[in-house]
Amino acid sequence: MLDKLKEEVYLANLELVKQNLIKYTWGNVSGVDREQEVFVIKPSGVAYDKLKVEDMVVCDFDGNVVEGKLSPSSDTKTHAIIYKNFPEVGGIVHTHSQWATIYAQAGKPLTAYGTTHADTFYGSVPCARFLTKEEIDNDYERETGNVIVETFRDLGLDEMQVPGILLNGHGPFTWAPNASEAVYNAVVLEEVAKTAYFSQLLTPNLEPLPQAVLDKHYLRKHGKDSYYGQKEKNNE
Amino acid sequence: MLDKLKEEVYLANLELVKQNLIKYTWGNVSGVDREQEVFVIKPSGVAYDKLKVEDMVVCDFDGNVVEGKLSPSSDTKTHAIIYKNFPEVGGIVHTHSQWATIYAQAGKPLTAYGTTHADTFYGSVPCARFLTKEEIDNDYERETGNVIVETFRDLGLDEMQVPGILLNGHGPFTWAPNASEAVYNAVVLEEVAKTAYFSQLLTPNLEPLPQAVLDKHYLRKHGKDSYYGQKEKNNE
Amino acid sequence: MLDKLKEEVYLANLELVKQNLIKYTWGNVSGVDREQEVFVIKPSGVAYDKLKVEDMVVCDFDGNVVEGKLSPSSDTKTHAIIYKNFPEVGGIVHTHSQWATIYAQAGKPLTAYGTTHADTFYGSVPCARFLTKEEIDNDYERETGNVIVETFRDLGLDEMQVPGILLNGHGPFTWAPNASEAVYNAVVLEEVAKTAYFSQLLTPNLEPLPQAVLDKHYLRKHGKDSYYGQKEKNNE
Amino acid sequence: MLDKLKEEVYLANLELVKQNLIKYTWGNVSGVDREQEVFVIKPSGVAYDKLKVEDMVVCDFDGNVVEGKLSPSSDTKTHAIIYKNFPEVGGIVHTHSQWATIYAQAGKPLTAYGTTHADTFYGSVPCARFLTKEEIDNDYERETGNVIVETFRDLGLDEMQVPGILLNGHGPFTWAPNASEAVYNAVVLEEVAKTAYFSQLLTPNLEPLPQAVLDKHYLRKHGKDSYYGQKEKNNE
Repeated sequence: MLDKLKEEVYLANLELVKQNLIKYTWGNVSGVDREQEVFVIKPSGVAYDKLKVEDMVVCDFDGNVVEGKLSPSSDTKTHAIIYKNFPEVGGIVHTHSQWATIYAQAGKPLTAYGTTHADTFYGSVPCARFLTKEEIDNDYERETGNVIVETFRDLGLDEMQVPGILLNGHGPFTWAPNASEAVYNAVVLEEVAKTAYFSQLLTPNLEPLPQAVLDKHYLRKHGKDSYYGQKEKNNE
Repeated sequence: MLDKLKEEVYLANLELVKQNLIKYTWGNVSGVDREQEVFVIKPSGVAYDKLKVEDMVVCDFDGNVVEGKLSPSSDTKTHAIIYKNFPEVGGIVHTHSQWATIYAQAGKPLTAYGTTHADTFYGSVPCARFLTKEEIDNDYERETGNVIVETFRDLGLDEMQVPGILLNGHGPFTWAPNASEAVYNAVVLEEVAKTAYFSQLLTPNLEPLPQAVLDKHYLRKHGKDSYYGQKEKNNE
Repeated sequence: MLDKLKEEVYLANLELVKQNLIKYTWGNVSGVDREQEVFVIKPSGVAYDKLKVEDMVVCDFDGNVVEGKLSPSSDTKTHAIIYKNFPEVGGIVHTHSQWATIYAQAGKPLTAYGTTHADTFYGSVPCARFLTKEEIDNDYERETGNVIVETFRDLGLDEMQVPGILLNGHGPFTWAPNASEAVYNAVVLEEVAKTAYFSQLLTPNLEPLPQAVLDKHYLRKHGKDSYYGQKEKNNE
Repeated sequence: MLDKLKEEVYLANLELVKQNLIKYTWGNVSGVDREQEVFVIKPSGVAYDKLKVEDMVVCDFDGNVVEGKLSPSSDTKTHAIIYKNFPEVGGIVHTHSQWATIYAQAGKPLTAYGTTHADTFYGSVPCARFLTKEEIDNDYERETGNVIVETFRDLGLDEMQVPGILLNGHGPFTWAPNASEAVYNAVVLEEVAKTAYFSQLLTPNLEPLPQAVLDKHYLRKHGKDSYYGQKEKNNE
């Protein structure tokens, strides 16, 4: 079942490595089938250079394995909670990429200081709070998903306009309508985290990008009035 | 038309990737034909590894497409304004290269602290002001060009002696008599931005390079008394 | 003798280079045979690209050469002391990897700020004191081993839960049940040193990772209740 | 003439590129023939990937071309002065490598904070003063050589124990008994500049490496009591 989705998720996992966001087995990509309410995810702790399409594991929205011989990623329940609560998400990426992790470890949100950020994330990428000891002891990976959802609800953020989050003391999650775009968002997050870092260090109390510039850049690439790239439908 | 220029611009775009200044489709190179008052530019949002010479788009100095099936770079009007106002410019490069972008996002000019800088840029590389909301709403990309020209006029800078600028909250533009040299200037800008950054961080209130050293290095490579490299004409 | 161990140590040495932890001949890996009380180590100052399996040197726990034509690594006695005092250690790595060395040169321990750290090191990686002039003059490399052991004893640390140390003004040592895992630990140490560095710089007085998160991440990968990766025995 | 030396200098130039110390044509290596009092140097401004052995230029100790069709490096007179004044120097390297240049641009010496430094440089690598306007106007490249010699004389340094210098606002020179070792010293300088930088930033007012450690590491690799590497003569 889900052969096409497995191939897509498998390739998205390899793309993460190619983009230098991964060391060893750290990180995972999943992709969802909304009709069947299942998602395909990388198996836990398998080296990327030994990974095969058929190793991909199929799970339901409670994180139970539906198909597959291997154990799914240890972060599977976090993915499940995200799919359950964010209905437009089609693919999810988790990495320990360096600069996003640096912000996550510092417990700081990633402010938009430039148009590279604004082209993909419509404002600050939030940093979630730490889990409590009770949450950790109860069900760590599921509660991690809950705190992601909570953060977006509390801040009133649209998860498709700010398609990512930093987990305090851990690292980033990104998402998108599909797995391949979620990888793209992970790459952008890493890039803007690095440049934001050094801009901030050079200019203490640096102001965020003015709202008008943020609007312009986000909206020229996203939504009905966007005009970046090739309008393939218009070429018909 | 313009086959040779298209090839040149196409190769200059690929060289940007090779020099690690580009992620995904971020960045563009153009080259001008002064007689016909048109320039050749990369199409918008096309992946570099799929780019073909024949994808290059020809535009006039108002940014209108003169030839080409694809939409030109979203920054086309900015290029047009630069060609119109800086008569010796033959090629233009825009990137989001990391260290130049870090300065741009911090809203700071790039001071000359070393001879590597002085060999190519005769003094500080300026940082333009942000556009106003009105300018953004009016015609963002054209006004971006205008603010570049304004910055050089206001500071009394010679655009061929300081062949580049940082756009506040965005990233760098560089230019040169041709597209290939504009790429060279983009690489130098990135390199000197990185070294300037850490020199500044090590020595707060670091003084710029003494004028006599700036003069010596710039002038031994540029102008009639230059003596760097091979004097091919003398070898005749 | 020890053909399999020599091959393992040889490959672990090459893996260090592949992981970009080594410049020139700086660094060495060894692996132990506990029954025979000898260990196999890289020869001193031999370029990695000329290294052959048969160049590996066999030494006893006093650092004397038991077999081999070449002189062993100049750090051989340090390895010997570690094997003698840490009975579960099966492989040892020494590098001058950049970020671990930066902490070592700054004389600072490497605090756990993130889960990447907690997945491998159960708390801070300590920084040893400098040797005294007397210790240096007496037997530098042996005393270096002694100060490593002393540091773990004084801090009451379990060397298998915190499988590494920073030598003040020098660089890191890591270890593990075998040479290949000791290399893995060296790579992790370098990665977490880099991210810790910049997290610390962004947030002065940054608090260590909460104990509950440290416990969760270390223990989900290590010990009898671990559940990361594939439980191969359960698949039987 | 000097075929073997030309080959050596040519290969040393290419090694610089391989070691990532060079962008474009920035940098040069030379090697001396002490009997004939001439040295072989890279031609000025020739791309490294087009460089051929036969392009190497032979100059005398006043910097005059003795043999070769191309103009020698613009820094030729600096090399000449060094050979003239430092009688044990057999090869010289000049680069704009990033971290050494960062110290040079900050006008700061490179203090020994670690054993990686001590293994090659027996103490701080000095930073020369800026040239005066008079010196620049008189004969820039020759005076640059003079200020290098002056710095070593004034500080009472042995140029073979501290085989390199930072030129204020410019970049590093290193040297050694031959061109290939001078390249090695340039690589070490770059590496220790990077780690020193971040150690210093982490610990303000960081103390230099204790003298006893500096002595131990320098002397275990250099001089009559050294014991690092393979003692080939003893193997006879």
